[in-house]
Amino acid sequence: MATARTLAAAAAAARAFSLTATSGGGVSMVQGASRGIGLEFVRQLLKRSDEGRVVATCRAPDSAVELQKLRQEHEQRLAVLPLDVTDESTIEAAAASIGETHGSLNLLINATGILSIPNVIHPETTFSKVQKSSLLLAYEVNAVGPILVIKHMWPFLKAGGCSETGRGFSLVANMSARVGSIGDNGLGGWHSYRASKTALNQLTKTVSVELGKKDNIACILLHPGTVDTDLSRPFQKNVPKDKLFTREFSVQKLLSIIDNVKKSDNGKFFAWDGQEIPW
Amino acid sequence: MATARTLAAAAAAARAFSLTATSGGGVSMVQGASRGIGLEFVRQLLKRSDEGRVVATCRAPDSAVELQKLRQEHEQRLAVLPLDVTDESTIEAAAASIGETHGSLNLLINATGILSIPNVIHPETTFSKVQKSSLLLAYEVNAVGPILVIKHMWPFLKAGGCSETGRGFSLVANMSARVGSIGDNGLGGWHSYRASKTALNQLTKTVSVELGKKDNIACILLHPGTVDTDLSRPFQKNVPKDKLFTREFSVQKLLSIIDNVKKSDNGKFFAWDGQEIPW
Repeated sequence: MATARTLAAAAAAARAFSLTATSGGGVSMVQGASRGIGLEFVRQLLKRSDEGRVVATCRAPDSAVELQKLRQEHEQRLAVLPLDVTDESTIEAAAASIGETHGSLNLLINATGILSIPNVIHPETTFSKVQKSSLLLAYEVNAVGPILVIKHMWPFLKAGGCSETGRGFSLVANMSARVGSIGDNGLGGWHSYRASKTALNQLTKTVSVELGKKDNIACILLHPGTVDTDLSRPFQKNVPKDKLFTREFSVQKLLSIIDNVKKSDNGKFFAWDGQEIPW
Repeated sequence: MATARTLAAAAAAARAFSLTATSGGGVSMVQGASRGIGLEFVRQLLKRSDEGRVVATCRAPDSAVELQKLRQEHEQRLAVLPLDVTDESTIEAAAASIGETHGSLNLLINATGILSIPNVIHPETTFSKVQKSSLLLAYEVNAVGPILVIKHMWPFLKAGGCSETGRGFSLVANMSARVGSIGDNGLGGWHSYRASKTALNQLTKTVSVELGKKDNIACILLHPGTVDTDLSRPFQKNVPKDKLFTREFSVQKLLSIIDNVKKSDNGKFFAWDGQEIPW
């Protein structure tokens, strides 16, 4: 959980950031940015223009070494805020800070996800290994968390959707996974993870109906492929080499989808190659 | 939660039941049988033959007046056991009792579902009403609960699938709902309920892959239509009269699907009229 000290430091950093930030290029938020795909999104978003500003969040900014390195390199364009999706007060605090600093968001990428933590949660290889605690934890982190983040960032996304800059609407991109597809589920297993991502798909679709109509916001779901990250590492042995992507490649592909998404894509679920995935 | 006294009384009832039960017609379990669709399943299962035995479970058997009336009328064929899907120890106790009395199940119907409880959970009409507590509660009751019931009844379903009697495999029928379909979601709203039923669909599909292969068990999902029950009552005002079904009609239709289901239907999602619903 974020301490008062961390929050105060983050607020101070955000204020400094505000004073020096340039106005063009829009504001992107990457939630779950300490490592893996989230960190790579931050890196590539910073690379692609000299103007766009990025708000990166993670549970423990102080120990996010690579993110802090990026922060030092791009101190006028990158803010780092503490946010733990299982603790709504930290989402509210991040929203307050973003409201004070920017007042709008043009892009929100929810990149967190839980699959495996030793002695806590592990992808089930058989039904007999399914535990209530794992089902609930995966749901809380992978489905409820991103939805609460959208809820608290909603006013800023709404403002971002009305702004003249950018694509004409603001965009939420939630990281889902092909194993969350019910129609594609021929192998079984991974019960807790699958169900949580499927629920995320339904919640994102549900939210997209309302936000797409009222607020000029589009919400999409993305499958990044199997990417060489800490999340996938214990499960890579059966993945053919040409199907195991680097973070750089996967995020390039996903950003290309994000760049080209149309308002009529609101509520859709895309794989890294742009193909739609069945529910 | 079931008290020790209730459990002891239930065990005694189950033993008496065992001694007098006839052997033909198979053993069906209806989970969530105190009212609504679950109660009607029990009623119709008892009506359709003189032989089939039924195990009905609900949170508080002592206050399930209509179920107890059925119990008095069919004391040799109906057992009533306490089971609260949010309390795994009660599922285990029910499984122990069923193991002692029957040792096998040919049919398991998971009929519980939570949609609305005053001051606790209410179907969300807009995203701003979505609360973490509602998301988690609906998931625990509607998705996790039925899956834990299958898990603990698995040995008996396995035995029931191997038995010579019945359809040649044992069947699990989970009550889902059309609003759990992501593909069919054009209206939005009801976030917690929708996501929980969607997750139930994915979990049932996942379980069906393994149980269908290894254990001669099929799992299906059913949408009962909008049925005149306590669950739907607060939300009936926009339902055309010919789309609001009686419990008798809906359960007749669902039992007809259950009677005619083939092993190749394993993992499918059917509406009351037999049409498949998209994921």
